[in-house]
Amino acid sequence: MGYRDYQERMTKIADISYAIALLSWDQETYMPEKGAAFRAQQIATLSTIAHGLATDNELGGILTDLNKSGSHSLPEKEKRNVARSLRDYSKQKKYSSEFVERLSKTASECFQAWQKAKTENRFALFAPLLATMVDLKKQEAELLGYEAHPYNALLDQYEPGATVAALDILFKDVREQLVKFVKQIAAAPKPEDAFMYKHYPKEKQWNFGLELLKQMHYDFEAGRQDISIHPFTTSFSALDVRVTTKILEDNLKSMIWSCIHEGGHGLYEQGLPTSEYGLPSGEAISLGIHESQSRLWENNVGRCLPYWKANYERLQKLYPENLGKVTLEQFYRAMNRVEPSFIRIEADELTYHFHILVRYDVEKKLIAGKIQVKELPEYWNSRYKEYLGIDVPSDDKGVLQDIHWSHGSFGYFPTYSLGSFYAAQFYHRANMEIKGLETLIEQGNLLPLLQWLREKIHKHGKFYTAEELCTQVTGEKLNFKYFMEYAKNKYGAIYNLKKEKV
Amino acid sequence: MGYRDYQERMTKIADISYAIALLSWDQETYMPEKGAAFRAQQIATLSTIAHGLATDNELGGILTDLNKSGSHSLPEKEKRNVARSLRDYSKQKKYSSEFVERLSKTASECFQAWQKAKTENRFALFAPLLATMVDLKKQEAELLGYEAHPYNALLDQYEPGATVAALDILFKDVREQLVKFVKQIAAAPKPEDAFMYKHYPKEKQWNFGLELLKQMHYDFEAGRQDISIHPFTTSFSALDVRVTTKILEDNLKSMIWSCIHEGGHGLYEQGLPTSEYGLPSGEAISLGIHESQSRLWENNVGRCLPYWKANYERLQKLYPENLGKVTLEQFYRAMNRVEPSFIRIEADELTYHFHILVRYDVEKKLIAGKIQVKELPEYWNSRYKEYLGIDVPSDDKGVLQDIHWSHGSFGYFPTYSLGSFYAAQFYHRANMEIKGLETLIEQGNLLPLLQWLREKIHKHGKFYTAEELCTQVTGEKLNFKYFMEYAKNKYGAIYNLKKEKV
Repeated sequence: MGYRDYQERMTKIADISYAIALLSWDQETYMPEKGAAFRAQQIATLSTIAHGLATDNELGGILTDLNKSGSHSLPEKEKRNVARSLRDYSKQKKYSSEFVERLSKTASECFQAWQKAKTENRFALFAPLLATMVDLKKQEAELLGYEAHPYNALLDQYEPGATVAALDILFKDVREQLVKFVKQIAAAPKPEDAFMYKHYPKEKQWNFGLELLKQMHYDFEAGRQDISIHPFTTSFSALDVRVTTKILEDNLKSMIWSCIHEGGHGLYEQGLPTSEYGLPSGEAISLGIHESQSRLWENNVGRCLPYWKANYERLQKLYPENLGKVTLEQFYRAMNRVEPSFIRIEADELTYHFHILVRYDVEKKLIAGKIQVKELPEYWNSRYKEYLGIDVPSDDKGVLQDIHWSHGSFGYFPTYSLGSFYAAQFYHRANMEIKGLETLIEQGNLLPLLQWLREKIHKHGKFYTAEELCTQVTGEKLNFKYFMEYAKNKYGAIYNLKKEKV
Repeated sequence: MGYRDYQERMTKIADISYAIALLSWDQETYMPEKGAAFRAQQIATLSTIAHGLATDNELGGILTDLNKSGSHSLPEKEKRNVARSLRDYSKQKKYSSEFVERLSKTASECFQAWQKAKTENRFALFAPLLATMVDLKKQEAELLGYEAHPYNALLDQYEPGATVAALDILFKDVREQLVKFVKQIAAAPKPEDAFMYKHYPKEKQWNFGLELLKQMHYDFEAGRQDISIHPFTTSFSALDVRVTTKILEDNLKSMIWSCIHEGGHGLYEQGLPTSEYGLPSGEAISLGIHESQSRLWENNVGRCLPYWKANYERLQKLYPENLGKVTLEQFYRAMNRVEPSFIRIEADELTYHFHILVRYDVEKKLIAGKIQVKELPEYWNSRYKEYLGIDVPSDDKGVLQDIHWSHGSFGYFPTYSLGSFYAAQFYHRANMEIKGLETLIEQGNLLPLLQWLREKIHKHGKFYTAEELCTQVTGEKLNFKYFMEYAKNKYGAIYNLKKEKV
């Protein structure tokens, strides 16, 4: 009964982890402000308990035994679960509690310093603590172990199997192909999008967002949507998945595409097999694959013309004063306006990847010790000039804009780009395999696409690695050409670019 | 450092218990329906962990040592904390895990049977499982131990120190004095209250409820209000207290008085000392004292004329179509309409206690084995006839109406009456000690009353027992005469009863 014992232990750890997820969800949505300190303490206590169970020697023993005997007796899915859990267990065991505490304490101080530095636009306030954090991350890479590059150890935490070697190739493509293409776009006249920033009252936006989610077949009996400052998705089982959105009354784009984006994450979570609760086979593969689901819905579906053929008229009727005279074509072009900008989270789907490129480059160099924290602003600004052709006016709009480094999340950013590139490759395949996909989308019938994703991706949990899944679904490993092809076709048409120049 | 060790352990247990409270709050407010099964499992897992920590032998050792040495070295508050925690610990240790499991399994089955029995109005479906539950509760009383009456062991779980001997005296007063008084009222003409049941749109009710809470100085930075099927209060620290309400569009009374009632509970929770988090000195004394706070606000304040002098005009303006021609006096009389009825939770503040009287009587006899489960409907109906003068038409409006017994909550009901009686006694005292209390209320200034409650009751946590607190605050033990006096003054005036007949 070793496997059963393993499963019971994993279920218990999941119960606690999902309780932590609820404590965090509530913190971002409904918690009154004075509740913050005790909430942090409650989360810390549960985290310690979960960590204790996840690194329990008995669990280690069970996993080692199962892993040895597994090659003979266990079915493939169970075998893979054991192997993945053993890998996680072994990683967790490498952290001393003293190191975990230092990391957590530094993260807390670093976050506070970052907040202050950003508010006051003074990088110097953040630099010393960030330097400490980078040191800790280097140590973490050493204790986790790696091949070839220390950054690989950190990447692996978010995107198992990702390496500097592979990302270098990918981002070289981005640099060579996408930079050139965006320059072409920049030379063309920009679509008018001022109507996106008129006054759009909240409640109608909220209701429209819910309709979009329903159309995606987001299951409201197994999930809900709420409001938070930063949109996010979390879940407490595949049967209780929470997405949040943000509504700006002077920016229609914010709610619509955050709603579709988080909806895509949510559909992935709802599609994971409930029978595998707590096991790798019941979990998402990686951040990159998770992001592929949100971006496929947000961009490949949510920013395509057929989707808005199905939905624009309704939106127009909700806001006749703002959209009455805006044609579908104008609306479509406006939502796909490409324009270099300073802030990552406000970027269009093409220039977005230059933002990631900069961060990837910086992180890799920081962890390898090839650049120092104090040099960051200058280096950052020079990269923005090179890739985006813009002069960063101040650090709060530059190197201080993101929260990630203050949390110690090094290796996280690349998964955003991976998500888009996987999405393009998956969507390309879906388009081949689902008959008349664009017509279905035009009719507002998104079920065949969801069923395809369920079948090809969601239901497998972590059975495959990201690379295996990609090959399984599309016949080849991740290949940037699908994204580039998608970009050229779509934006070539929108911006009327000559094919040969592309 | 024994006390510090004890405090750290209690803090950890509290962290888990409050996480459970959040899981439960979410279950009642926002959880999508399919999330129920995994949620129950998550709560069970955390409960087991909390129970494990609360019955840990090391904790027992620390408590025993501190309790021995405490009489010399510890300050009084710390000494009492240790004594109370040791008492709780010793009680918890009496339960075998096998017994806990049987209790929990029976409760779950019994609850399902009750739901079905109530829906189908068939007591026979509930009876066998209720009989099993009663047997278990008898066993529980035996294993906990008691003096004089087994029911005392169960009462003690909700109202430490409460006994059959004391309650018998109290409920004898209720029977002798209140039954007679209500008969007098029944003979008088009833106030018109049809306007309470007109159409009252939701959103205005919601906003009005929030205003009432703000007026009570319920701290919305340390709490919030949401909607649930059954209104309740819970907290995750004194700095994060959640109340819920229920809005019926065809019954104005439901929202208003549930809102004030839960607000009273919420103010107690917000008034507990945050520095005592996790310790008895940071917890409410008992269910009876908790209920005294909700009922003092709901009835003594929320159903008095000065309160509505401050608030009626605003309400009237919200609903001119329903209340435009209703005078303050008419509104006041309508909210205090006394009328025997079948359903406890819909009862007025006087006949309410007859409902409790019946339940107390039944529980005591069941646990003592003086009545059998199968005899319940007949016995129940005969009691309703005697105290309320009404013929119960069917078991779903009679013995099947409450959820409590299906959960195994025997000994809980009496705390509702205790709450009202404590409230009357506390309020009587407040009226003596706060200069011009009624005038202040009339001005909508509820702060002096809240400050009085904070100072006299809230801030002490469990430092005093209920009996000690009552004596400390009012100069004497709980005495039914304060409630009776309040009832006679108020309803004598409303119903124009002759003083001497009373």
